[in-house]
Amino acid sequence: MATITVAASSLKPLGDRVLVKVLAQEEKTAGGILLPDTAKEKPQVGEVTAVGEGRITDKGDRLPLEVKVGDKVLYAKYAGTELKVAGEEYILLAEKDILAITL
Amino acid sequence: MATITVAASSLKPLGDRVLVKVLAQEEKTAGGILLPDTAKEKPQVGEVTAVGEGRITDKGDRLPLEVKVGDKVLYAKYAGTELKVAGEEYILLAEKDILAITL
Amino acid sequence: MATITVAASSLKPLGDRVLVKVLAQEEKTAGGILLPDTAKEKPQVGEVTAVGEGRITDKGDRLPLEVKVGDKVLYAKYAGTELKVAGEEYILLAEKDILAITL
Amino acid sequence: MATITVAASSLKPLGDRVLVKVLAQEEKTAGGILLPDTAKEKPQVGEVTAVGEGRITDKGDRLPLEVKVGDKVLYAKYAGTELKVAGEEYILLAEKDILAITL
Amino acid sequence: MATITVAASSLKPLGDRVLVKVLAQEEKTAGGILLPDTAKEKPQVGEVTAVGEGRITDKGDRLPLEVKVGDKVLYAKYAGTELKVAGEEYILLAEKDILAITL
Amino acid sequence: MATITVAASSLKPLGDRVLVKVLAQEEKTAGGILLPDTAKEKPQVGEVTAVGEGRITDKGDRLPLEVKVGDKVLYAKYAGTELKVAGEEYILLAEKDILAITL
Amino acid sequence: MATITVAASSLKPLGDRVLVKVLAQEEKTAGGILLPDTAKEKPQVGEVTAVGEGRITDKGDRLPLEVKVGDKVLYAKYAGTELKVAGEEYILLAEKDILAITL
Repeated sequence: MATITVAASSLKPLGDRVLVKVLAQEEKTAGGILLPDTAKEKPQVGEVTAVGEGRITDKGDRLPLEVKVGDKVLYAKYAGTELKVAGEEYILLAEKDILAITL
Repeated sequence: MATITVAASSLKPLGDRVLVKVLAQEEKTAGGILLPDTAKEKPQVGEVTAVGEGRITDKGDRLPLEVKVGDKVLYAKYAGTELKVAGEEYILLAEKDILAITL
Repeated sequence: MATITVAASSLKPLGDRVLVKVLAQEEKTAGGILLPDTAKEKPQVGEVTAVGEGRITDKGDRLPLEVKVGDKVLYAKYAGTELKVAGEEYILLAEKDILAITL
Repeated sequence: MATITVAASSLKPLGDRVLVKVLAQEEKTAGGILLPDTAKEKPQVGEVTAVGEGRITDKGDRLPLEVKVGDKVLYAKYAGTELKVAGEEYILLAEKDILAITL
Repeated sequence: MATITVAASSLKPLGDRVLVKVLAQEEKTAGGILLPDTAKEKPQVGEVTAVGEGRITDKGDRLPLEVKVGDKVLYAKYAGTELKVAGEEYILLAEKDILAITL
Repeated sequence: MATITVAASSLKPLGDRVLVKVLAQEEKTAGGILLPDTAKEKPQVGEVTAVGEGRITDKGDRLPLEVKVGDKVLYAKYAGTELKVAGEEYILLAEKDILAITL
Repeated sequence: MATITVAASSLKPLGDRVLVKVLAQEEKTAGGILLPDTAKEKPQVGEVTAVGEGRITDKGDRLPLEVKVGDKVLYAKYAGTELKVAGEEYILLAEKDILAITL
């Protein structure tokens, strides 16, 4: 039975989905975001590595995404589908589960 | 592993989301709002520090938000995602969870 | 930490929300409305003190509200968000939770 | 504290709501409707005493109601909000909870 | 208190509702429909005796019904509201709960 | 009380409904479909014997069905309403519960 | 009773459905995707072997699918309907349950 090897760079999200590389959250300095333990829905920080072409409306138009490759984003931790590629953690999200871009 | 430092000023909410700095609620004078303990859904007061560009309709139009940076707002406490940046509490909300602006 | 003082007159509801001052319901005369204890969803009487500009449709149009400041209204008691301002009770409601106007 | 007195004739339902005066159901003759005890959702008979101006569509058009003042209607008993005005029972219903008109 | 007498012929369903007279199901011959006891949702057979004028769309157009008076129909037993008029069983259904017409 | 006899050939599904004759599934050869016991939602095979004219859109247009009489189809077993006509099993389905046509 | 034999090549998904042949996942190399046991919703890898013609909009237009025959895809494991044809595992999915294409 053949082994499936898929590089992260070869994953193309469909529709309004976004591939995000999970970033480390071990330490937060005074200027950084600190997510309280009491938070109902803990957000995390990641970097967008691939985006879909956008969802298609009922009229057949495609609505492009707001986020683009390279954006650092805050996203809801419990959304999406986790993947591990070459030892790195990724998450596949619908764009609506991205809360903010960090400029 | 690199530390992520994100200043509150660099957070750009997506779509119809709004970043709100939580304001103190320790004392309320006679003219102020007092939220009864029996309230089903306790609102809180905060100040808008960043707004998204608005959600995109099925036609590809963007609907701008009603609130703007600097607005003091009442919002539903149990909505949104809590953040702590540089010791200050923030909340990321969808605009629909903002109940009123205090003029 | 600064105290927040917000006068009721300075609260501007967003979208299709309405600010209603709760009216007394202690006695009901023969010509008045009497809400039976067996009612599934007890309505209450209040006076509209501020209205939003109306919700925005998918086309970007704003749909103005049917109720206006000064209207006395029946509303579903368990809807909305209770506030107390300067000792008076208020409720912030979506217009759809207003059942009727009393002419 | 002032007493609120609202005559039934002064209640104006909002949107697609209808005010219905509950009619007696004590006896049913052979030609009349008899609601079996086994009915899942017992309908009742009432008379429309006030109607809203209709709901407003996303385009800002108002859709007038099908029922009018004076219509005798069958409605789902467990829908709406019960009121008692001057000793008479009324119910505030959305038009969709009215099942049929009795011609 | 007056007795309400409503003849079945005077009931006019609203919107997309249909009045159906329940037909007997005591025996089924070899050519007839036999509803297995294991059926998740037992259909029944009835005859349409009155129909609404159809629901009104968001544009204010009325969509006429597919069934007409005299049609024999299969419908989902657990849908709708049961009535008994002059000893006969009727059911008030939304057209979407009618499964098929028997030609 | 009259006996109702309805032949399968006289059943006309309404809207987007489809009448399907259940086909035998006793043996599956190597080239056939075998539905694993672990399947969450077991599909079955049947033959379309009647189709509705399609659902009517909000604009009053009718959207014809994709399946036609004679098509062999895979459908979700737990959808629809089971019927038995002249000893044969049938199922009345919404077209959306048909998964695939077997060419 | 006749045996039903349906080859995988003869299955034509309806609407926005996609037939996917499940691929082996036994070993994952360093460059491959490794799905953590802690993943909330484990994705799987498969190859598209047939696609529907797309769903039909309310206007009667057909929206073609983004995936095509031969695409290798990541999909949500718990979505869709499992089939076994000639000893091979397949899954019938709605396109929205496909997360990404592996280029």
